[in-house]
Amino acid sequence: MVDIVMKFGGTSVADAARIRASAELVASEAARGQSVAVVVSAMAGETDRLIALAEQFGGGLGEDETDTVLATGEQISAALMALALRERGLKARSFQAWQSAIFVDGPPGDARISGFLTEAVEASADAGVIPVFAGFQGIDTERRVRTLGRGGTDLSAVAIAAALNARCDIYTDVDGVYTTDPRIEPKARRIDAISHDEMLELAAQGAKVLQTRSAEMAKARNVPLRVLSSFAKPGEARGTSVLDAGGIAERRIVSGVAYTRDQARIILLGASDNPAIAAEIFGALADVNIGVDMIVQGRARDAGTVNIEFSVDRRELGRAMTVMEDAHGDAREIIHETDLAKVSVVGLGLNRRADVARILFRALGSKGIDVKVIATSEIRISALIANDAVEQAVRALHSAYGLDGEGG
Amino acid sequence: MVDIVMKFGGTSVADAARIRASAELVASEAARGQSVAVVVSAMAGETDRLIALAEQFGGGLGEDETDTVLATGEQISAALMALALRERGLKARSFQAWQSAIFVDGPPGDARISGFLTEAVEASADAGVIPVFAGFQGIDTERRVRTLGRGGTDLSAVAIAAALNARCDIYTDVDGVYTTDPRIEPKARRIDAISHDEMLELAAQGAKVLQTRSAEMAKARNVPLRVLSSFAKPGEARGTSVLDAGGIAERRIVSGVAYTRDQARIILLGASDNPAIAAEIFGALADVNIGVDMIVQGRARDAGTVNIEFSVDRRELGRAMTVMEDAHGDAREIIHETDLAKVSVVGLGLNRRADVARILFRALGSKGIDVKVIATSEIRISALIANDAVEQAVRALHSAYGLDGEGG
Repeated sequence: MVDIVMKFGGTSVADAARIRASAELVASEAARGQSVAVVVSAMAGETDRLIALAEQFGGGLGEDETDTVLATGEQISAALMALALRERGLKARSFQAWQSAIFVDGPPGDARISGFLTEAVEASADAGVIPVFAGFQGIDTERRVRTLGRGGTDLSAVAIAAALNARCDIYTDVDGVYTTDPRIEPKARRIDAISHDEMLELAAQGAKVLQTRSAEMAKARNVPLRVLSSFAKPGEARGTSVLDAGGIAERRIVSGVAYTRDQARIILLGASDNPAIAAEIFGALADVNIGVDMIVQGRARDAGTVNIEFSVDRRELGRAMTVMEDAHGDAREIIHETDLAKVSVVGLGLNRRADVARILFRALGSKGIDVKVIATSEIRISALIANDAVEQAVRALHSAYGLDGEGG
Repeated sequence: MVDIVMKFGGTSVADAARIRASAELVASEAARGQSVAVVVSAMAGETDRLIALAEQFGGGLGEDETDTVLATGEQISAALMALALRERGLKARSFQAWQSAIFVDGPPGDARISGFLTEAVEASADAGVIPVFAGFQGIDTERRVRTLGRGGTDLSAVAIAAALNARCDIYTDVDGVYTTDPRIEPKARRIDAISHDEMLELAAQGAKVLQTRSAEMAKARNVPLRVLSSFAKPGEARGTSVLDAGGIAERRIVSGVAYTRDQARIILLGASDNPAIAAEIFGALADVNIGVDMIVQGRARDAGTVNIEFSVDRRELGRAMTVMEDAHGDAREIIHETDLAKVSVVGLGLNRRADVARILFRALGSKGIDVKVIATSEIRISALIANDAVEQAVRALHSAYGLDGEGG
């Protein structure tokens, strides 16, 4: 049985001193009688170094041998963490994916965890030997090594915690989830507790502290998470708990403000007002895996026609425009706009408030920030704005939704 | 079916350019219709870097987690070699020990290959996908990664070739086995063909080109070897063939001169002339794995007593003297001497010549080099001399045994 899966990211295992500090946190939980398992990322910078090695031979991300190279980063830090734990008198051993029986499917460089036979790991934990997992990897049905994509060690940790029915503590270089990016808004405050739904929205809308797929899996499998700093002394890290909404005592209207820069917008002018056309366009984009966001359809100048607009990641714009060459329905013209950003306000209470949109328009309007598109979900409201207005917008929304004040 | 196992050492995969050059050699054999498998070492310097990482946490050689760290070196170069072969339009894939099913037993850092289930690898080769093995490693019965000790990739290659019934080509940074070290004797010549017995003696007596355990296994399993340079252009490497004695057309009396520096000698003075005493001494040394060489027992000054002397590696002297504190029989005194070296002459024809010892004494004597101990085997004669006389001795013996001349 494992109580806590402790995940340490690249900066938490960056060198011998950091590995030892992280090992001390593990030892502290063990001393409190917790049965722990550990999941580690590669030492900071190592994954980039390894990608550069593979790229010398045209082995980019998404190549099976690149995955074999990349997986060594976590293999090394897992072994070093096991050694560091032994230095502290604990029993520990490393587990590579083929040893821990973590199975994946999906393409190299972007695999998804499909199974985890917990037997060997649980036997280790039950025997008092702390399992230390090489994160970010699994093996596929052909017994090849596959990696899970950037930030994949978070995903490993959450999946392992889900399978072991344990809590998952994500140790990182910040001390929790903040109401917004403190580099932009110094009044940003650490959130004590947040729901899985809100965490997922914040991650998906640009908060960097937790990878979106991990937040998704934590929500789907209802894994209690904590996000906390590995730079704090044992017992002193406060962090943020990510829980089922029912577990959160204090309800806030809004939990945080997230942002994503480098968005682009594509506008099809004067297409027939016919649902089949939108289906054709968005189907073609989905076929090549281009994520589409903030879709708006509005009546156009010419009777019986509409304008269809949507946003995509700036890096996908070229591919999206190529797709549009074929799949544009009968649009009269296709235009695009870059240098856009998206700011989002996330909170469980948003759906109970009638004036959320008004607050947003007022807050941005008072700063002279033009809202190009607005979109809402149950617990989120987002606005597409100019890239260079992001910082001002984040601060304005942080204040307008009452996040600046004390208490939360 | 695999015809040739091609092994590339650390300098042959040191960087992208060297990996590409080695891939070209593989492509050249493949183009000649040979079915090849490849075995690679870690990139030059990588194993030292990885050992230093593990040593930061007290993970020395012989530690299971150190092995896990070390094995990544070969894992990376195998994947890069597979990518480099694909760049040339060949099909290839890497195999880690758990994928190629190479099993070992023995301690971490010094394991021995105990089995190799060739099925997956042969299926790959038969499907035209060149198997590229991460050398130097295997998995034990508990599914932990174990390394084979320094130079272990040679051993991997020979074991793989033996199991696949293939020839083993060892590509390295010299163009074959030489009659002696060319840095000491510029007249040293490359040997075209040499027997397994001679190769084993040369390796055991200090020739660095092939690891002793690999030479042993090649002899035991009768694996035809070639030692050749990866720096030569495809088809231009001549190298040295290591064969069954029957396969060597031209017989020489002597094949080469090897040397080992840093020997030490221990002398027990005035022990009883009783075989039980020698048995006690050498038994105690064997119990702690100290290799003993050049044993001499001679009558001592006092009637009924003998002096027993033997040589050990200088690095083992401290441990050996500690053992001698308990296990010294009834010797009157134990003394030791350092700064010694061993020079050895190896040749299949030595046992047919009555005057080999005389030639050795004369050659060394003419240079004023004192022979402290002499020892012979069927195909070898060795002398213990002063460390600082090694170079002169090697040159004198190279000349005296007729190795300086043309042809050979």
